Amino acid sequence: MTKEALPKCLYERVTIIGTGLIGASLGLAMKREGLAGHITGCARKPETRAKALELKIVDHATADAKEAVLDADLVMLCTPVGSFAKVAAEIAPNLKPGATVSDVGSVKQAVIRDVGPHIPEGVHFVPGHPVAGTEYTGPGAGFAELFEGRWCLLTPPPGTFEPAVERIAECWRRVGMMVEIMEPQHHDKVLALTSHLPHLIAYTIVGTATDLEDASKSEIFKFAAGGFRDFTRIAASDPVMWRDIFLNNREAVLEMLSRFNEDLSMLQRAIRWGEGEKLEDLFTRTREIRRGVIEAKQA
Amino acid sequence: MTKEALPKCLYERVTIIGTGLIGASLGLAMKREGLAGHITGCARKPETRAKALELKIVDHATADAKEAVLDADLVMLCTPVGSFAKVAAEIAPNLKPGATVSDVGSVKQAVIRDVGPHIPEGVHFVPGHPVAGTEYTGPGAGFAELFEGRWCLLTPPPGTFEPAVERIAECWRRVGMMVEIMEPQHHDKVLALTSHLPHLIAYTIVGTATDLEDASKSEIFKFAAGGFRDFTRIAASDPVMWRDIFLNNREAVLEMLSRFNEDLSMLQRAIRWGEGEKLEDLFTRTREIRRGVIEAKQA
Repeated sequence: MTKEALPKCLYERVTIIGTGLIGASLGLAMKREGLAGHITGCARKPETRAKALELKIVDHATADAKEAVLDADLVMLCTPVGSFAKVAAEIAPNLKPGATVSDVGSVKQAVIRDVGPHIPEGVHFVPGHPVAGTEYTGPGAGFAELFEGRWCLLTPPPGTFEPAVERIAECWRRVGMMVEIMEPQHHDKVLALTSHLPHLIAYTIVGTATDLEDASKSEIFKFAAGGFRDFTRIAASDPVMWRDIFLNNREAVLEMLSRFNEDLSMLQRAIRWGEGEKLEDLFTRTREIRRGVIEAKQA
Repeated sequence: MTKEALPKCLYERVTIIGTGLIGASLGLAMKREGLAGHITGCARKPETRAKALELKIVDHATADAKEAVLDADLVMLCTPVGSFAKVAAEIAPNLKPGATVSDVGSVKQAVIRDVGPHIPEGVHFVPGHPVAGTEYTGPGAGFAELFEGRWCLLTPPPGTFEPAVERIAECWRRVGMMVEIMEPQHHDKVLALTSHLPHLIAYTIVGTATDLEDASKSEIFKFAAGGFRDFTRIAASDPVMWRDIFLNNREAVLEMLSRFNEDLSMLQRAIRWGEGEKLEDLFTRTREIRRGVIEAKQA
């Protein structure tokens, strides 16, 4: 495709706003691949900035988002999505004509709603979502290989400058991702099911466990190998990031939750009435899905 | 403790009824540690027996449970718990006086109800549950290291011959497990939360995904890295084994499910009304639980 046409260094000056797990991993991966001439990191806390510099995730660090985006060819928003409206309003006056603003937020309709209106004429806005992560947070959690073999979804609004979309797509490909263009609404629905609902459920069940009065917490820890431990890993994800996701993908999450609740009620009833066949039938069908995930190399 | 007192070979003749993941792993681990003089495996399907012999999980294989237990010093039930009543009735007449009957079932009250009445005078019945497993099934899935660092829960009825309990505990310790004695009712409640409910939820959510009409299954596979994939792994567990667990731990599972549903409704409401603080508060609490699981070395 355009791989030959684009230079090794895709963006002379890159600004990463928010050097947490994703921002830090992106900085490291872009440096490894030589995709950026210079990376500025923006983080509120002094210790985050110090860590980002120490780990050579960024070349320069500042707490001032407005200053951070001056001269940037690419501005990547990597803070929790609830902060995007404020950040966008703040940086808008300093965005360079021809620059690209993108993000890594896990919801896309709300990001377009919050960021879009602030983007000045002549600046390209390409919302994105690299579907990758771990339960760890902060710059120290970042690693250049995070994105390898995973999918990045881009949801550019209609009429977005095509070369800007292609360049950011190439950037994600070069750090190891497969890229797909998607409608933001469809993105939010699919991710509500494959990511947001699983997190909500994991948070719930781990919360239910913390309230159990007649099993000590130590028992729950000890016997976690029976399935619970996978939920505790998911439920250890960043609280503010996930709060913002649920608040900003409300409708799709509530819709998927309704479907989930219906299905759970059916199983609850099958257990109560001893309907073994119904249980076995579902458990056999879900096994197929695992095969699909393995075949898609996302296991 | 009694570690010094017990011989290297704990049971001259062992019979494993059901050479699936757990039975096969136990056979391999006992052989590695020299805990059994001779192991007979019992499996219905000819191919399972052939595989168990080929992989040197057992020394002898038969489809006839009655024949399999003749002269056995230890009979370990490793089939799905729904089959235990029938198996126990079948083997009872051939159990050797002084033999121990144990099991690896994930529920304990139902096992005591189903197996206990069949155990003849002079035979020791020590129900057990090694909390370990993978989503794979069959003798080929077995591996000797499965039990290492995990907990085995024993729920001997009051008055059980103490040396028989100690010997089976020692057997599990020698294959790498930590052992705890527990009331069967308490076991079923704790496991309903830490194992059965997580599986039920995972089966449900993966089932919900299979019914989604406007996202292709390939999309669900592709974007599974956002949390869904962990659920697909859990939901790939053995269908018959899990059917039997739910049917045989009905009350505890339904009780935990009620609590879970209440907690989920609270979160649902918080999302609907945009109550970010409630969400963040829970998500911060659940993070602590992960730390406990890591500290208990069960992560």
